[in-house]
Amino acid sequence: MKTVGIGIVGYGTVGQGTASVLRDHAEDITRRCGARLEVRIVCRRSPVAQPPAGVKVVSDWNAVVNSPEVDVIVETMGGTTHSREVVLAALRSGKPVVTANKNLLAEHGEELFALAREQHLPLGFEATVAGGIPVIRAIAEGTAGDRLRAIRGILNGTANYILTQMESQGLDFADCLAAAQKAGYAEPDPTFDVEGIDARDKLAILVRLAFGERLRAQDIPTMGISSISAVDIHYARRLSGTIRLIGAAESNGSGIEVSVRPWLVSNKSMLAKVEGVNNAVFLEGEKVGLQMFYGRGAGGEVTGVAVVSDLMEIGGDFSVGSLSPKLLSGFLGGKELQVCREPRPCSWYLRLTVHDQPGIIARTAEIIARHGINIDSVVQEPHMEKARLSFVITVEPVSEPALQSAVKEIDRCPFMLEPVLVLRMEA
Amino acid sequence: MKTVGIGIVGYGTVGQGTASVLRDHAEDITRRCGARLEVRIVCRRSPVAQPPAGVKVVSDWNAVVNSPEVDVIVETMGGTTHSREVVLAALRSGKPVVTANKNLLAEHGEELFALAREQHLPLGFEATVAGGIPVIRAIAEGTAGDRLRAIRGILNGTANYILTQMESQGLDFADCLAAAQKAGYAEPDPTFDVEGIDARDKLAILVRLAFGERLRAQDIPTMGISSISAVDIHYARRLSGTIRLIGAAESNGSGIEVSVRPWLVSNKSMLAKVEGVNNAVFLEGEKVGLQMFYGRGAGGEVTGVAVVSDLMEIGGDFSVGSLSPKLLSGFLGGKELQVCREPRPCSWYLRLTVHDQPGIIARTAEIIARHGINIDSVVQEPHMEKARLSFVITVEPVSEPALQSAVKEIDRCPFMLEPVLVLRMEA
Repeated sequence: MKTVGIGIVGYGTVGQGTASVLRDHAEDITRRCGARLEVRIVCRRSPVAQPPAGVKVVSDWNAVVNSPEVDVIVETMGGTTHSREVVLAALRSGKPVVTANKNLLAEHGEELFALAREQHLPLGFEATVAGGIPVIRAIAEGTAGDRLRAIRGILNGTANYILTQMESQGLDFADCLAAAQKAGYAEPDPTFDVEGIDARDKLAILVRLAFGERLRAQDIPTMGISSISAVDIHYARRLSGTIRLIGAAESNGSGIEVSVRPWLVSNKSMLAKVEGVNNAVFLEGEKVGLQMFYGRGAGGEVTGVAVVSDLMEIGGDFSVGSLSPKLLSGFLGGKELQVCREPRPCSWYLRLTVHDQPGIIARTAEIIARHGINIDSVVQEPHMEKARLSFVITVEPVSEPALQSAVKEIDRCPFMLEPVLVLRMEA
Repeated sequence: MKTVGIGIVGYGTVGQGTASVLRDHAEDITRRCGARLEVRIVCRRSPVAQPPAGVKVVSDWNAVVNSPEVDVIVETMGGTTHSREVVLAALRSGKPVVTANKNLLAEHGEELFALAREQHLPLGFEATVAGGIPVIRAIAEGTAGDRLRAIRGILNGTANYILTQMESQGLDFADCLAAAQKAGYAEPDPTFDVEGIDARDKLAILVRLAFGERLRAQDIPTMGISSISAVDIHYARRLSGTIRLIGAAESNGSGIEVSVRPWLVSNKSMLAKVEGVNNAVFLEGEKVGLQMFYGRGAGGEVTGVAVVSDLMEIGGDFSVGSLSPKLLSGFLGGKELQVCREPRPCSWYLRLTVHDQPGIIARTAEIIARHGINIDSVVQEPHMEKARLSFVITVEPVSEPALQSAVKEIDRCPFMLEPVLVLRMEA
C-alpha cells in the first residue's frame, strides 16, 4: 500500500486538529482511501510543546515544502502573505495542497487556483467554509447539475454565539462579547468575527463556486453585529423573530445581490433554529429547491475532519497514480460577477434612537410616506427613558436604495441620537 | 472536448427528470465537468409520448447496454430483478453505471459493488437516498475522516407528508393517505412508503456506507405509520411534540442499534421542523458532532440532479481518461454488522386503547411498576367515549426488551381493544 507523506505548515488549532484526526482514525482512513496518510513534518514559529511521535518539527516552511518525504502540503497558518508564498511554492514544486485559509482564498484564490490548474494539481479547500460541514462538495459536486438561485448562510460561529447569548441572557452586545472572549469563543481582537469580515470571505468563496464568476471579497457590502443592542433583541421578539448575521447571495435575473448583514428572521424559520457556535448554509436551486446543511463551524478537530476529507481524496488519487485538480472548475469562470444595482424589494426593520419629544412618530412617518414606502408596524415599549428612547418601524417590501434615501432624511432629524439601525427582514 | 454518450434504462419520472436536467443545464454541466454529457438512447416498455430530440427510443435494455454509442448507463427502472441484470450486464461490458434504485442496492448492493470494484468502474448511487440532498457524498467523502456514531433520518417524503397533514388538519391516517394519493404524493399501493420499507432500504444503504459493515435491509426492525391515529397526534401535542418516521442507527460500543419506526419528537427538535415531503439526515460524528442535511427527498428533477452529479463525476473521469470506482469503499467492508441485542435505554410513549372500566390505570401502572419501570406521565383527555377510550402513559428511560415484556403483559389484559402502540421518544 502507498504511503503519502504530509507536511503541515502552521501547527495551531486546525493544524493540530488535523494531526489528531489522522492519528485517531488512521485505520479507517487507510481502508477508505486506499493509502496511508502520514504526518512527517510540521512547521511552527513558536516551539511545539508535544510534537506527535516520529514527526519532525521545523520553523522554516521551506523545509516542509522542499522535503522529499512530503508529498502533500497542509496550509493552516492563516494570514495572506506567507500562506500565499507557501501555497505557490508547493504547487510550483508539484505538490498538492490542502488549505483551511478562507482569507487567503478570498484574496488570492484566482491566482492560486489558476496555478493549480496549470500544474494539474488538487488544491483542497473544504475546510475554508463552515468547518466540518461538507458544503464545498455539496455545491461543487452534489448539486453540480443544478443552477443555484440563492445562497444564505450563518457562516460565523462567534457572531452567532453572541447573538444567541444576547437572546437567552437578555444582555447587551459588549457583555456577551466579553463572555464569549472569556469562554474562548471569541478572539482578543474580535473584529473579523463581529464585523462580518470572516463571514464575507467565506461567502465570497461560496458565491465564486456557486455562480462561477469572479468576485472580490472586499466588494461585498458588509455590516457586522456590533451595533445590535439588547433593545433590538427585545423588539425582534415582539415581532416574533430573532436576529442572525446572514451572508446572502441571490440571483435576480439581471445580476447577483450579495451582502453580509444582520437579518430579523422569523422564529418559525430554520435560520432561527441555528444556535450557538453552529453554522448553516441554505442553497436554493432551480431543480432541487431548498436545501440546508447544518453543523459546527469551527474547532480544531471539526475543521481537521474537513482537511482530512481533502487529504483522503488526494490519497486516493495517489493510490491510483493520477492526481486531478478537483473542485476547481467553479473558481475559474472568466466573467466578473455582475453585482446587482437594483436589489429586489424586501421588508425592513428600522430602529430609531431618539431624544423623546412630541411629533417624532408623525415626522418619521411623513418622511417614509413621502418616499412612497408603506409602514407595516410601529412598536414602542411604554415607560422608556425620555432622554434616550428606542422604537421600531417595520416597512413593507421596498428596494434598499429607495429605503436608504428615506433613512438618510430621518438621520438628519434633530431628535435622532444615532443613525437608524436597518435590518433586512426575512421574506 | 470529449462527448460522453448516456443511455437511460427506465424512462419514468426519474429517467425523464435526469434527461431534462441534462438538457436544461447543458452548458454549465459541460463547463464544470469538462465533457459533454449527451443522452443517446432511452429504454422504456411503454411508448414514450415525447422522446427528446435526437434520442433513440427502444424497448429492449440490451440495445442500450450493447450500443457502441453509449458510454454510461443510467438505471432508473426500479424493481430488483431486471434492474440487477441491467447493472451486471453494463459493468461486465465495461460501462460505468449510475443508479437511483434503493431497493436494488439494499438487496444486491454487495454483488454489484464487488463487480464494479473488480471491473474498476464507477457505480454512482447519490440518487438512491434523499433525492437531491448529497448525503451519500457527505458520508463517503465529506466526513470520511471522522468516525460516525449515529445516523437519524426522515427518509420517506410520503410518510412525512401524511404525518404533517395529520398534524395540521387533525385528520386520521386513512383520510390523509387518500388525500396524499389524490395529490400524487402517494402511490396507489402505498405499502412501501407507509410501512417503512422504502425508508428501511435507504437506511440500509446509509448504514452500510457509514459503518462499513454488511447489513441486510430485511434484518432492520421496521414499523410504519399506518397504526398512528389522530389521537396520537393529539396526545403528542399535549406532550409538546409531534410524530416522525425515523430511520436510526446508533453505535453503542458493543454493536449498532438499527430501526425504522415512528418517534415522538420534541417540538423544539430540528426533526419536528422537517415538514411535508422533505427529507432530513442527521449525522453524529466523534469529531464533527451533529450535522444535518435537509431538502426535498423525491421528484423527477430533484432526483435527476443527484443522477447528474454522479454523471458529471464520471464525465470528469472520461475527460482525463481514467475511470475510478468512487464511493465504493464504504460498501466493501468484510464484517457482518453486529446488530445490538441490548438497546440503550430511552423514554417511550405507550398509547392504550381500552373499553373503559374502573381500575384500568391502576392495573397497568402495577404491571409497569412490577417490571421496574418508572412512569413519567399519564395523559387522558376527559369526556371520551367509554366503549373505546385512548390514553397515554410515558415512561422513563428503559431498554426496549424490558419495555416489551411489560407491554406484552398489558396486551393480555381483557380491557385492551388493540395492542399498545409504542413510540420511541427522542432523548
